[in-house]
Amino acid sequence: MSKGLLIVLSGPSGVGKGTVCSELRKRMPDLIYSVSATTRQPRLGEENGVNYFFKSREQFLEMIENDQLLEYAEYVGNFYGTPRDFVEETIASGKDIILEIEVQGALKVKEKFPEGVFVFLLPPSLDELKGRIQGRGTENQATIDHRMSVAAHEIGLMENYDYAVVNDEIDHACQRIQSIVIAEHCRIRKQGKC
Amino acid sequence: MSKGLLIVLSGPSGVGKGTVCSELRKRMPDLIYSVSATTRQPRLGEENGVNYFFKSREQFLEMIENDQLLEYAEYVGNFYGTPRDFVEETIASGKDIILEIEVQGALKVKEKFPEGVFVFLLPPSLDELKGRIQGRGTENQATIDHRMSVAAHEIGLMENYDYAVVNDEIDHACQRIQSIVIAEHCRIRKQGKC
Repeated sequence: MSKGLLIVLSGPSGVGKGTVCSELRKRMPDLIYSVSATTRQPRLGEENGVNYFFKSREQFLEMIENDQLLEYAEYVGNFYGTPRDFVEETIASGKDIILEIEVQGALKVKEKFPEGVFVFLLPPSLDELKGRIQGRGTENQATIDHRMSVAAHEIGLMENYDYAVVNDEIDHACQRIQSIVIAEHCRIRKQGKC
Repeated sequence: MSKGLLIVLSGPSGVGKGTVCSELRKRMPDLIYSVSATTRQPRLGEENGVNYFFKSREQFLEMIENDQLLEYAEYVGNFYGTPRDFVEETIASGKDIILEIEVQGALKVKEKFPEGVFVFLLPPSLDELKGRIQGRGTENQATIDHRMSVAAHEIGLMENYDYAVVNDEIDHACQRIQSIVIAEHCRIRKQGKC
């Protein structure tokens, strides 16, 4: 049996990673979603192992110490990270796993897991991205300007990825990503065939 | 405008390269077919620039001399080769071009044009390939044995290719190749985006 693939879907904030990822999971029911570990408290209805792997701070620090995370970050006092075991067990079982993650996290994953398939989701244009960020209506101008400058910087990091997919339309973006997954299963460096 | 791709479809004799190539051209009407140059005489109904570029022996030798062929071979007293100009002009115009070629020729093309997308078409099994070669009913046992041993050797050269596609069923094989083309247009090393 050939191994599965780790597909890392990344891109600037506001580009639509979450929407594309949800749609892909509908279209590809066998695709496993990478579940993050976190030290934050579960919210009502959240299940351990489904929404997150809930960990104590001590457990999380031990995971860092033992190199059990492909990447991690601290955000508003809580740790969030990608457990290596879950990814490795999934691909060893022959299934593909998708990890939706921001750009800095994706680049950390690439250091530890270069055999992943790194897909950068691009906005059709920076203006379009600005419109989407403004459209949320939750940000003031200084925040919008800051996020736009971060996005421009992140787009400059695209060359570290394997593929660039423009999220002009969700259907097209998903079709391209599905094609990438099929093609990657045929790639000879993967020692698989399709 | 982004450049087109050279897609090299290759594999052992009897694997079904021609059938898959014809079907791909039906499904992908924008895909250009690489036209070979030859010194053999045109047959009835064959058109210059459509079936072949018909050349005199002197012209062909001059093309070799001037490195105007991505590969060439002599077969039963006639030269056959792949004109570099036609490939380069097609991809410069933003169109994809497919070259259907046997394994030795594909490896020569790779030396001169490593940025091509090299797809190895595999039989579902060597037994299946033997069945197909025998099924033609035109070969004696010694020829069949020889062709099988050539095929086994050629399959060993697969690691020089980018992708392996099993021709188990023409529809599946074509879908995989179409996915490879879409994915390759999204690859970042191509400096394109999709």
